[in-house]
Order: sequence, then structure tokens, then C-alpha cells
Amino acid sequence: MNTPHHAEPAIALIGPQLGENIGAAARIMANFGLGDLRIAAPRDGWPNPKAQAMAAGADAILETAQVTDGFAAAIDTLDVVYAATARPRGLEKPVYGPREGVLRLWEAVRAGARVGVMFGSEKSGLPNDAVAVSDAILTYPVDVSFASLNLAQAVAVFCYEWRTSQGDAPPTVFAQAQSPPAAKADLFGLYGHLEDELERAGFFHPPEKKPMMVDNLRASLARASLTHQEVQTWRGVVRVLAEGRGPYKVRKDEA
Amino acid sequence: MNTPHHAEPAIALIGPQLGENIGAAARIMANFGLGDLRIAAPRDGWPNPKAQAMAAGADAILETAQVTDGFAAAIDTLDVVYAATARPRGLEKPVYGPREGVLRLWEAVRAGARVGVMFGSEKSGLPNDAVAVSDAILTYPVDVSFASLNLAQAVAVFCYEWRTSQGDAPPTVFAQAQSPPAAKADLFGLYGHLEDELERAGFFHPPEKKPMMVDNLRASLARASLTHQEVQTWRGVVRVLAEGRGPYKVRKDEA
Repeated sequence: MNTPHHAEPAIALIGPQLGENIGAAARIMANFGLGDLRIAAPRDGWPNPKAQAMAAGADAILETAQVTDGFAAAIDTLDVVYAATARPRGLEKPVYGPREGVLRLWEAVRAGARVGVMFGSEKSGLPNDAVAVSDAILTYPVDVSFASLNLAQAVAVFCYEWRTSQGDAPPTVFAQAQSPPAAKADLFGLYGHLEDELERAGFFHPPEKKPMMVDNLRASLARASLTHQEVQTWRGVVRVLAEGRGPYKVRKDEA
Repeated sequence: MNTPHHAEPAIALIGPQLGENIGAAARIMANFGLGDLRIAAPRDGWPNPKAQAMAAGADAILETAQVTDGFAAAIDTLDVVYAATARPRGLEKPVYGPREGVLRLWEAVRAGARVGVMFGSEKSGLPNDAVAVSDAILTYPVDVSFASLNLAQAVAVFCYEWRTSQGDAPPTVFAQAQSPPAAKADLFGLYGHLEDELERAGFFHPPEKKPMMVDNLRASLARASLTHQEVQTWRGVVRVLAEGRGPYKVRKDEA
């Protein structure tokens, strides 16, 4: 713990085989705001064009990734490191699900630790000697009969959980897309307009059922939480449908 | 809502381009215990050998997947469908993060609804006409400057969140790997053994600091939560180190 605050966990891929998975890991890290990638002993050398293709724009993460020969060099600047694995190793080690693991990593970050997670190779996962030096095992609530995640998917789940631990709120860009609901006065206008037209068309039959039918119609419209603009649109719908109907047209012409 | 309880959400891929992503989606569904895959208008036809290769054993999900021409047929047996998208569409629609979205889908399931999520194509995401008929937008707390997830990663995050909403606990296979901590009597034995050897080696210097040094040593050993077996191992470590040390050896020989 040399420096006071490193809020961002490192992702250390130990012996990854496929460039595609390295690139996909970089992409999902960028999606969820992480950037510290370490790659130990990539099977196909480095740089890897397939990784760049799959990164889909997260090139900066690949370019600044720390590439090392073994797992120790990939984590030796970290203070708290978890080992992601789907297999118990017979090692005495705390085992955390992703939600609890992320909360504990946050505690370490707040205490000033530099944190990270190691992910093993596609074929065999993390080597036992890497799991042995980790501070805890990170594992996912998988179906035990089909427990092995794709490498990049395993990274995705961690990055997502890390980000979500800071809040589940959709990006603010979505906030701007939502309008407030219409004023009740607008809705009463729509209700009345619709009900008048339905009355003219003989919809409320038998007449004693009209109050209940009106309430049900209003309840479904209320549930739609229409905006002011949508109320105007639906007024237009009612108008056009009513005008298009023969008997009403006749009646209007008669008036 | 025709039947009382469909606990499992359907995953509907709308216009997916790459077989690899369809296969990776099937694999992660199987990892997290989901099985109802629907595929609308896969670009490269169906079946797709690349999907099978990436499914890595989740073949049953691909074999039973419902393949349709358009998005409507892929969701028409569902009651509540969310649209996964990273882009606001200017449509008035509830917007949920994955955690809130999953909670709301569970509410729908408990009310008897059949639920699902639509994911769009790699190139352009969901078409607006599919988003329009959805019950809500599902979006992720991504970095808005790099918001587009790989298709299979987007499916992974949802499947993970669905599973985790039922509990974060590691699979029970991990529970068997952990032994209880050693009895305090074992630990007192180790402490005493270590401290006796350190005393002989002249480690406690100056003598008035010994109590504090002992407490600090014991505190770090206590924090390791050693098991009974590990205490035996460390007793052996202390013994061998002490025997190997020259002066002690001499002293022992003298005794």
C-alpha cells in the first residue's frame, strides 16, 4: 500500500490463449470504466491483431496493458488480489461471490490498497500457484453442471459488478429522453373526449354499466402514464376514428 | 399470461450477425441456468457451425432455440419483454438498470407473467419498432463514451444479474473446500513454540519490547485463521528452521 487511493481494480489475464478474448476483455473493461489490464504470458505473443479487432475501439487499454512473463510480475504492484476460478482447489482460502467480493475489494480500496483480480487461461483456468498467493477466491453463482465461463465473459461479470456497486442508475443520457407525465387536466380532456364519442357510438351498453366501463377505461389510460404530447396524439386518434365512422358522420352532417 | 409460473426469462436475439456471439450467448445462459433462447432473423442462417463451436457444450440450448423470421414472432408468447439498448430512442418508456430491471421482471414472474429480454444486432442494436413494443428499456451503467457492449457480453450481464438476484452464494462445491479454524489451544502451542525459538535466537531485543513484539506476531498469525492442519505445518516450519540454525544447533549439541 504505497499510495493513498487506487479506486480502480486491475484485471490480470494469466496465460490467455485467444487474442479474441483479450480484446473482448479490454472492450468490456472500457464499457464499465476500467482501464488497468495486465497480461501474463499470452500464448500467441504480443501484440495480437485479433485482440485489437475484438477490442472494437478500446485500443488504448491494449496499448497500455502491462505484459509480463509470469503471473507474479503481473500482480506484484498490487496489495490485494483475488483469484477468479470455478473450481475449488483444496486450498484454505476465503471464497466470495462477485457481489461480496466487490464489496470487500472496495473496503480494501478505501483502506488505501491497490486491488486486482486474476483470470486464468481458457483451457485450464488459473494455475494453483497463482490461486495459492491470492487473498481470496472469487467465484460466480453458476450452474455447477456447466460452470466454466468464457474468459471474456468472466471478466465482464466482474467489471459489471464493480461498476454496479457504485450504482445501478442508467447513464444520464437516458434521463433526457423521458418527459414528465401530462397534467391531470389534459387527461380529463382525453377521457371526456373519448367517452363522449363512445357514448355517441352506443358503446356503453347496458347504460347502467357505463360508470364501471368508464372507470376501467380510465384506469388503463392512467396506467400508461401518457405525456402531454401523447395526450394530444390520442385526442387526434379519437377524433379521426370518430369522424371516420359512418353513423357519426351522418349525425354530424345532420347537425 | 396463460400459465401460472414461468420463472425463467427468455433471451431473444434480434437479427444477430455472428454465430460466435449466438454461441457465446447460449454458453453464458447455461452457466447461469437459463435455457430459453429465441433467435430472430440470424444473418448467416441457421443452424450455424460457429455458434455450435462457441457454445462449448451448451448445444441443447442451440438445438431447442426458437428461430423466427422477425422479432414479433420471437416474443409473441411472452407477456413482459424488456429491450436492451445503450441508446435512448426518444421513445417514452421506463428505463431500468439491470438490477432494478431484474427485480421488476421477478415481480412480473410472481404475478404469472412470461418474461424475456430482446438484444439487438452487433451493428446497430435493436430496431426502433422492437423497442417501441417493449415494456421497458434495459440499459447498463456503462461509460457513456464507450457504451456499446459486445452482444454476448450484454447477454452475460443480464444472465448474471438474473442468477445473482437469487443469491450471491458460491456454488456448494466450494463449501466443502473450507476447514474450520484451529482451536485456540493449537494456536497457543504454535505461539509458544515460535516465541521460545525466537527467544533462544536473540530475536527479542531490547528485552523490554518483547511483550509488544509477541503481541504483534500473534496478531498476524491470528489474522491468518490457520486450520488445525496448518498449525501442524507451521510447527514443523519453526522446528526445522530452528534446527537448521547454527548457534542453536551448537547449543543443542552442548545440552
